[in-house]
Amino acid sequence: MAMPGPGYSITMRIAAPPSATAAGDLTTAVGKAGGVITAFDVVESAAGLMVVDLSANALSADHAGLITEAVGSLPGVEVRKVSDRTFLVHLGGKIEVTSKVPLRNRDDLSRAYTPGVARVCRAIADNPDDARRLTIKRNTVAVVTDGTAVLGLGNIGPAAALPVMEGKAALFKKFAGVDAWPVCLDTTDTEEIIRTVQLIAPVYGGINLEDIAAPRCFEIERRLRGMLDIPVFHDDQHGTAIVVVAALRNALRVVGKDITNCRIVVSGVGAAGNAIIRLLLKQTPADIVAVDINGIVHRGREGMDPNLAEVAGKTNKDAQTGTIHDAIVGADVFIGVSAPNILTGADIRAMNSDAVVFALANPDPEIDPLEAQQYAAVVATGRSDFPNQINNVLAFPGVFRGLLDAQAHNITDDMLLAAAAAIADVVAPDQVNASYIVPSVFDAKVSKAVAAAVSRVAHEQGHAAPAASFSSVGEDDD
Amino acid sequence: MAMPGPGYSITMRIAAPPSATAAGDLTTAVGKAGGVITAFDVVESAAGLMVVDLSANALSADHAGLITEAVGSLPGVEVRKVSDRTFLVHLGGKIEVTSKVPLRNRDDLSRAYTPGVARVCRAIADNPDDARRLTIKRNTVAVVTDGTAVLGLGNIGPAAALPVMEGKAALFKKFAGVDAWPVCLDTTDTEEIIRTVQLIAPVYGGINLEDIAAPRCFEIERRLRGMLDIPVFHDDQHGTAIVVVAALRNALRVVGKDITNCRIVVSGVGAAGNAIIRLLLKQTPADIVAVDINGIVHRGREGMDPNLAEVAGKTNKDAQTGTIHDAIVGADVFIGVSAPNILTGADIRAMNSDAVVFALANPDPEIDPLEAQQYAAVVATGRSDFPNQINNVLAFPGVFRGLLDAQAHNITDDMLLAAAAAIADVVAPDQVNASYIVPSVFDAKVSKAVAAAVSRVAHEQGHAAPAASFSSVGEDDD
Repeated sequence: MAMPGPGYSITMRIAAPPSATAAGDLTTAVGKAGGVITAFDVVESAAGLMVVDLSANALSADHAGLITEAVGSLPGVEVRKVSDRTFLVHLGGKIEVTSKVPLRNRDDLSRAYTPGVARVCRAIADNPDDARRLTIKRNTVAVVTDGTAVLGLGNIGPAAALPVMEGKAALFKKFAGVDAWPVCLDTTDTEEIIRTVQLIAPVYGGINLEDIAAPRCFEIERRLRGMLDIPVFHDDQHGTAIVVVAALRNALRVVGKDITNCRIVVSGVGAAGNAIIRLLLKQTPADIVAVDINGIVHRGREGMDPNLAEVAGKTNKDAQTGTIHDAIVGADVFIGVSAPNILTGADIRAMNSDAVVFALANPDPEIDPLEAQQYAAVVATGRSDFPNQINNVLAFPGVFRGLLDAQAHNITDDMLLAAAAAIADVVAPDQVNASYIVPSVFDAKVSKAVAAAVSRVAHEQGHAAPAASFSSVGEDDD
Repeated sequence: MAMPGPGYSITMRIAAPPSATAAGDLTTAVGKAGGVITAFDVVESAAGLMVVDLSANALSADHAGLITEAVGSLPGVEVRKVSDRTFLVHLGGKIEVTSKVPLRNRDDLSRAYTPGVARVCRAIADNPDDARRLTIKRNTVAVVTDGTAVLGLGNIGPAAALPVMEGKAALFKKFAGVDAWPVCLDTTDTEEIIRTVQLIAPVYGGINLEDIAAPRCFEIERRLRGMLDIPVFHDDQHGTAIVVVAALRNALRVVGKDITNCRIVVSGVGAAGNAIIRLLLKQTPADIVAVDINGIVHRGREGMDPNLAEVAGKTNKDAQTGTIHDAIVGADVFIGVSAPNILTGADIRAMNSDAVVFALANPDPEIDPLEAQQYAAVVATGRSDFPNQINNVLAFPGVFRGLLDAQAHNITDDMLLAAAAAIADVVAPDQVNASYIVPSVFDAKVSKAVAAAVSRVAHEQGHAAPAASFSSVGEDDD
């Protein structure tokens, strides 16, 4: 099912004889090798030589090599250079720190730096809450990782995780105007991670934990929430849970079921699965059955860690045992955040009528979505080349925008649920259908709606700063 | 000697009767109260009312209040709002994180984020040095403080120190294109500071320690240099030392002395004094005599910490004892990084002929520079309202620009000396005079010259990355 995509796009600089058929020969060679041409630019054209930049998408690095070879083997043709456009985008990093203040002359310097800055420092020393107004704390989030669970790559360490954190920071700014900064920690020790985040916290208005392996991530989040006066959010848990709950809300609209009547199977009880189960429980489904690599999670199972034991205590009312194939029989909803290709069409056929299937394992889902579609009423994946992409980008920018706007000191499950409802409701009732249960990640309405919902709940629940919380230091905001 | 400066500039929004003399009355009132008007803007003008924004510099917050009162007491005049322009500049913070890559559509997202980013992560996991090319590590410096020695304010804590660190980051970008990020640590424990910097280091190509109190700062720097593979620079030490050495180089040109014949008195043996002494010793002056709050530092003194003992061991060849007033008699050079008003004109008169006096205590120098000028040939201060301002801004941006350009793993004293020479040499030989021993902080040539000098030494000494140190990952830089 894989198609050449822009994640593997290359640009070849090609020297070719300026014959009438040269351009056609080149494009034909790329096409025959399975590449998809995205751009053809003539760089130089002389009597004896034509130089072109030919950009093409490939399936993989190896495939890009085959395409290059195919072009290079044409008579008289030389591939002078191959640029990998993904790597080009990353050169020198994807984010930068820029000044918001002018520094043209001595007066500017006197205000933004010494001696003027000393008065601002004193104001904050006298009234620490002023840091939320007079510093970057007002709009800045730390994206914290230890590099142990990065994408599908696993434990690749803090340096190799940095491109993901930079990308996340870029998305924070693009989608919600939030300043986010990568904090890649060179330790996997729970205590050290907790203490380090506590020590760096003064600069930030919120902490976004990212790609930290389970079960360590649960303790880190719980303890940081207890010790910091800024919200702590683990995107792999709560970001995913928000978007799943949003998608499920609209999927159930499509099939006309109420969640309180639904039996839900969740496959995978890591960071995402845990948070999904917890957030779904707030909506009182008929039952949830969790399944992990050892089968159905039930109260009697031995060797469970405290986290899994807590899941067992709150799910599986009938104390069912067995495998994923047993669990899924008669279920209304399947939510997979586990492993590729663990289900077949027969499993989906065994679900209740009008089944909802979210097969979110990346890059390869729990079941081929085209196969699932034959038996389920609604199918969603984590993939961008299939309808209904469950993508955290729908959640985290707006969530932190709302938290920062409210100057929130905490984040609550009610905020997460409000964010989910806001995402779902961006798709108007008359637009919802089996192929459109979540809005596009590029829909600018999403983060605004999420931010407004989160901020509203923060104010309702008393977690926001009161409107006039700042001390007067002789100036005015406008 | 203090003059109203832009560090205390206010803008008053004033409603006044639209009489022929109103504008004159307002400006007269401000002038009589000692304010210096910098702008007069009519916001609104109607039959019965004129609204103006009047901007003025004041001496202090109290003085600004007096100016406001003077205006408000005019008949028929109302001051509707007073904005403090220094605070206005700080609202919401002075720096932001911006994306360098486009994120307009799915293709962009696929390259900068998933799935494309995974290949970049893998490349770095396979070859960690690639982080210096494919991530922000290439151009990013951490500005690390514990908030214990901020400007002249002392131990105000990490949150209150943040405006200074933001300002520093803004200067890094403005003067050298370096991305710098504030790291304000909520601890004053030496071990915790060291460990935290080590843990956050993967993101950074250099560490700039800032406003950390002595003697803790010495151990922190020394141990971090030993454990990290990126350069560690304590600006309060080495930034100051570089600029002092640069200024002294030109000052001695003015008076026609050679440093090897000079006796130098250094007052203050904190972070700056220590580093100044160390760097000056590399230039083999005739002697250095250090003085602290307990008098002249000499080998026989009791109760010295290891740091002071080391200074004692390398200075004061004649084992002189006594006070600053004893030390300065016959000295060629006085360098003060200590306390205000500890010297008088009589002390300067007692120095050798053609004396050089750097009175750098901030905001009030060791001696009134106007008084010092009566007896010394060259006088410099840390103040912006006097010639020859010794300002670290001349050093740190270019130093890190050079280190990052060279992908240096270390920083050495030879690099510091090269930076000092580069700063001094920006002032051409025919331009050097008693009022112009250092270039302007706004001279764009400075950071370029410093960067080139530091990078050159890094390459000469084998501390730079070799030109082709990166693994090939199928792409090309241009």
